[in-house]
Amino acid sequence: MLSNIRIVLVQTFHPGNIGAAARAMKTMGLTELVLVNPRAFPDEEATRLAAGAVDVLENARCVNSLEEAVSDCVQVVGASARLRSLPLPHFDEPDDMAQQVIQNAVQAPVALVFGRERSGLTNDEIRCCTHQVSIPANPEYGILNLSQAVQILAYEVHRAWRKRDDNHFMYQRPLEATPPSRDQFVHFQDHLGRLMQQSGFITQPHARTEEQLQALFSRAQPSRKELSLLRGLLSAFESHLPDSRKG
Amino acid sequence: MLSNIRIVLVQTFHPGNIGAAARAMKTMGLTELVLVNPRAFPDEEATRLAAGAVDVLENARCVNSLEEAVSDCVQVVGASARLRSLPLPHFDEPDDMAQQVIQNAVQAPVALVFGRERSGLTNDEIRCCTHQVSIPANPEYGILNLSQAVQILAYEVHRAWRKRDDNHFMYQRPLEATPPSRDQFVHFQDHLGRLMQQSGFITQPHARTEEQLQALFSRAQPSRKELSLLRGLLSAFESHLPDSRKG
Repeated sequence: MLSNIRIVLVQTFHPGNIGAAARAMKTMGLTELVLVNPRAFPDEEATRLAAGAVDVLENARCVNSLEEAVSDCVQVVGASARLRSLPLPHFDEPDDMAQQVIQNAVQAPVALVFGRERSGLTNDEIRCCTHQVSIPANPEYGILNLSQAVQILAYEVHRAWRKRDDNHFMYQRPLEATPPSRDQFVHFQDHLGRLMQQSGFITQPHARTEEQLQALFSRAQPSRKELSLLRGLLSAFESHLPDSRKG
Repeated sequence: MLSNIRIVLVQTFHPGNIGAAARAMKTMGLTELVLVNPRAFPDEEATRLAAGAVDVLENARCVNSLEEAVSDCVQVVGASARLRSLPLPHFDEPDDMAQQVIQNAVQAPVALVFGRERSGLTNDEIRCCTHQVSIPANPEYGILNLSQAVQILAYEVHRAWRKRDDNHFMYQRPLEATPPSRDQFVHFQDHLGRLMQQSGFITQPHARTEEQLQALFSRAQPSRKELSLLRGLLSAFESHLPDSRKG
């Protein structure tokens, strides 16, 4: 699916932007890069900024026209900050665009087309497109760096891809400690409750105060290990209390 | 609200990343930048890559510790590709993070903290944080350039801000031509229907074919101007038909 997503850069002026775009693509699982008449490519600057995505650069296709770059695509989305008044269907929100693109990419190639740094896409190039998208931004300063625009739209495509149930994306999570069992948690709450009274914090059984503190610990979702640390702390306090009763 | 969102960069190595981050921030309406012990700042490279966001650099605050940078914040989200096993609440998805951040930013400052290019944040710095977030990415190559990570999280924050009803964000739209009135559209359909018969395309009244083509034009949502062009084209065809009847 992601391999059907093609990133097309038209007449990019700064080779550094090509490299940074390649890196942006690879971080989001995209590999298909097509360059239409880049000003300078291959180039050291592109290689440098590509960092670990040099393979994307090496596999990039160079062509002479946008038509050539997208001729087999079923959907061609032109990304531009400067919207023309040509009445292409326009996505206000990149996430709506990404959902459609991912849907189409199940079957066939789809292209996201980015224009020149200064002047975007020409009218003829917009005619190669089926849709337009812009990235909602600060109306006072809304022109993103080219590779940043590629990063955002690649990110939205990846997000739409993640959200499809059938993709089973594995989130990188911190090594989560195991949660405690109900039993272990209830033992902790009982222990806490007893010490609230034994310590004189609660002079009479006061359900509300007990409940509030217990709710706090519940909400904190302590791991098994943390609960064990808390029990240890309570025991340390307990050892100093008069009439220590282990119940 | 957006002015309560603070971007904190910790010991950034490349001044170019600081500049690019400032630009990324400004495109998303963020202005508050804090630098913790940057290696080289101010710097020409930062200024160059900031492009039109030099004001963000000029207003950036430099401090000696992360604690200083975030002491007044009610929420501090550490962004890191390398998750520690410290059990900070963790957002799998930046959009969930952004919704919470925007909600909190109504009232008080909130910080998004980015670590060093190579080593991220130290354990002590993570202890200054209330939450962690990572950007879901390609498991084979998931390390985004620092300023790209800033761009994505700034974009998600802006997106969460846009989606709040009370913000009335104005989308930049292409100059949409006015849609036609029902009356104008019906006249067009009638004209088309007549010419389908006059031209011999439909030999008998054939409701289905007429309906199908009319549905196509309906779906195309022609603007008033386009409809006028279509009417002109139909009239040009009409002038060549036998027994031209204007109905």
